[in-house]
Amino acid sequence: MRWMPDLMLAGYVEREHDRIVATLFDWLRIPSISADPARAGDVRRSAEWVAERLTEAGLEHVCLLETGGGSGGPAVYGDWLHAGPEVPTVLVYGHHDVQPVDPEDAWHAPPFAPVIVGGELKARGAIDDKGQVLYQIEAARALLATSAGLPVKLKFLVEGEEEVGSVNFEALLADQANLLAADIVVVSDTGMIAPDVPSATVGMRGLVAFDVALRTATIDLHSGMWGGTVPNAARVAARVLASLHDDDGKVTIPGFYDDVVALSPVEKASLDAQPFDEAGFRAQGGSVPYLEGEAGYSALERIGVRPTAEIVGIRSGYGGPGIKTIVPATAGFKLALRLVPDQRPDSIAAAFRGWLEAAIPDGIEVTVTPEGGVAPALTPVDHPAVGALSRAIERVWGVAPLYTREGGSGPEEALGRVLAAPVLFLGVGLPDDRIHAPNERMVMDQFWKGLLAAGELLVELGDRS
Amino acid sequence: MRWMPDLMLAGYVEREHDRIVATLFDWLRIPSISADPARAGDVRRSAEWVAERLTEAGLEHVCLLETGGGSGGPAVYGDWLHAGPEVPTVLVYGHHDVQPVDPEDAWHAPPFAPVIVGGELKARGAIDDKGQVLYQIEAARALLATSAGLPVKLKFLVEGEEEVGSVNFEALLADQANLLAADIVVVSDTGMIAPDVPSATVGMRGLVAFDVALRTATIDLHSGMWGGTVPNAARVAARVLASLHDDDGKVTIPGFYDDVVALSPVEKASLDAQPFDEAGFRAQGGSVPYLEGEAGYSALERIGVRPTAEIVGIRSGYGGPGIKTIVPATAGFKLALRLVPDQRPDSIAAAFRGWLEAAIPDGIEVTVTPEGGVAPALTPVDHPAVGALSRAIERVWGVAPLYTREGGSGPEEALGRVLAAPVLFLGVGLPDDRIHAPNERMVMDQFWKGLLAAGELLVELGDRS
Repeated sequence: MRWMPDLMLAGYVEREHDRIVATLFDWLRIPSISADPARAGDVRRSAEWVAERLTEAGLEHVCLLETGGGSGGPAVYGDWLHAGPEVPTVLVYGHHDVQPVDPEDAWHAPPFAPVIVGGELKARGAIDDKGQVLYQIEAARALLATSAGLPVKLKFLVEGEEEVGSVNFEALLADQANLLAADIVVVSDTGMIAPDVPSATVGMRGLVAFDVALRTATIDLHSGMWGGTVPNAARVAARVLASLHDDDGKVTIPGFYDDVVALSPVEKASLDAQPFDEAGFRAQGGSVPYLEGEAGYSALERIGVRPTAEIVGIRSGYGGPGIKTIVPATAGFKLALRLVPDQRPDSIAAAFRGWLEAAIPDGIEVTVTPEGGVAPALTPVDHPAVGALSRAIERVWGVAPLYTREGGSGPEEALGRVLAAPVLFLGVGLPDDRIHAPNERMVMDQFWKGLLAAGELLVELGDRS
Repeated sequence: MRWMPDLMLAGYVEREHDRIVATLFDWLRIPSISADPARAGDVRRSAEWVAERLTEAGLEHVCLLETGGGSGGPAVYGDWLHAGPEVPTVLVYGHHDVQPVDPEDAWHAPPFAPVIVGGELKARGAIDDKGQVLYQIEAARALLATSAGLPVKLKFLVEGEEEVGSVNFEALLADQANLLAADIVVVSDTGMIAPDVPSATVGMRGLVAFDVALRTATIDLHSGMWGGTVPNAARVAARVLASLHDDDGKVTIPGFYDDVVALSPVEKASLDAQPFDEAGFRAQGGSVPYLEGEAGYSALERIGVRPTAEIVGIRSGYGGPGIKTIVPATAGFKLALRLVPDQRPDSIAAAFRGWLEAAIPDGIEVTVTPEGGVAPALTPVDHPAVGALSRAIERVWGVAPLYTREGGSGPEEALGRVLAAPVLFLGVGLPDDRIHAPNERMVMDQFWKGLLAAGELLVELGDRS
């Protein structure tokens, strides 16, 4: 990459290039899969690794923040508070846990053996979210290595349960409200439209997810002796899931759309101004044959500003080689519902349970396990801190960012709400980074730009005070 | 058990009881799962075990009949042809391969460690079909141990691919037509209504089965960034499978019912005369909460004389612990379609493929793998050999059998058609034997009665000539 020579951290990046890459590789080799209880030790090791890097960078009060248990691991905290009372306190948020890797045989290289090919770093967690955390740590390290120190008071909070729905995150924020108090939150876990179309997220969808288990009998039954006359758990699941959307692509859960706030004309115009290359989008998605979704809305609306319900997985009956002539007695499925302002996770969860109960015939045993809930988040685009972010991005990418909404979900809503601070999103991910999928990657040029922009943003936020 | 003292083989059973049980245990310890390529060696070991027992019993020309490859293992042949030209040749059919055992954690004891508890032998293959083959071998052994030898010419054909749809069976019958030529076929792989309501199957449903794989993209996608706008393979599968039956429980494949022959008034009356204890049936099925199925037909009609389509399994997306926020790019499902006279596997398979093609949106990649095809079978109840079977059963159980149709499917149609011989069904299975399911069992009293009835049947068939 070529960056403008007046960028503050350009010299640091040139000098420290090899060490930073080696450091990132080292972290990516830790399989910190929070969804897998067998990986709990690795998630903890990842937390300890982050703590060591924060300490090396010059941050203080570095510690692990244990959470209430369940899947995932501790969060990591560190701060540097010597910038004086007149400048704001900035809290940088990211996470050190990663998604599962299955189907593992779809990876072209082992997911925890990072490699850079053609300017792309390939590994689970490369962009989601280890790369995006590390450039923040390195930006702080670079500034702390100067005689001036940091232009703001800085805190890091690196979570270990983001990929399992941040189940303990809000309680952590509340418990540690004094420690984590900040004037501005910078979330480093999002993406932009394209390398040459930088953008900044101002909103994220919320998420409620469920695991549903059905049982129609205590045993699988022989399809010849029982088939055609007893309930088939796989068919019950198929019928329920087929009824989740109507023919217009609308979610059929009663009241699902009741609290959705329509886009203002200004926001709608901004969204419509965004470039959307359908062919490119479909290619990035792995040769998606066609687009579909809620009738009456564009693809960008469907992925950013409309709520959705997706089937994450189904399991029922025999899946091995050949055939087994059974009527399955059990079925399981997982659903992820994305929420937008002002949908609330608790009321949507209640509506989902009511819908499910009505959809499944009496007598069939149903078990619903909630898998986390996160409310949607939105930061006003006219907030001064958003202007600082815009200038930082423009200085590095050479063009001012568009403002977007992110389809994904995170604990950012709780950050903004519990800490009572505006939330900024600086993220360098790209649409074809394959996050949560096999062969996740990070474009290294975006990583280095992220490091520079993180530094510029701290300066902008310090100047603003 | 108490049997009538004039039964021919009663003394043999009393003398040989312990050896026979030990022999059966020995066989049941061989995990001859034909659907699992990793078990091919065990299926072959099972074939060799059968060959040794046939030889010990006094049969001749014992050999393994290799088939055309694929899953499963060789069939086993043996004969004893010294009864003279005036008596018929009887071919006894059974199979030595077994179903898979998953979910293995649902077994109360290891599936290949047989044990008798409360008069029930528990093991995979106990009743389907090792127990039912062994009582035939032991009946022949008992008669061959007498000075008179057998009352008929006898052939054994013990298949090793029955549980994978007998894919090579018809070719085997055609290739070995001279070796296998017989006047009467006795199938030893079916059941009866209840221990005190003996019955004899006169018809079996056919079977066509399919494995279907769908692909909507080359990679799983992040549900936040792509959800709501790209096809979801799990949803495509759910919608297709939900549309397999209409609201009346009828299969929606065009032309599916075209070749179904209505029951004659005589057969319908016979079926309606059979006892049906719905509460007991539901309890046997593992606490089935309700019965359902094709509108306008009784439960016995639905499981015996009507064709059905059952989902055997579905797999899509993430099935591990917790949640993974993806839009799955692949889905797979397996279907088993039961056929009745005069449906033909090939035309139903073609209709299924047409239906599937119409049900799946253009652009989605579909792969259909056939998993065997067996035509339905029916033996006229007024055939003299059926009378011989009825007398043999009445002599052992003390009451004449009802004639039933079996819902399951086997290679019996090919046996009868290729060998041009009537097919008799002597089977001692019971509705709650959990065949193809965890905790398969055989009621030992039924096994010993089967051994006695097998001997009585050979005498009856010899007398008849």
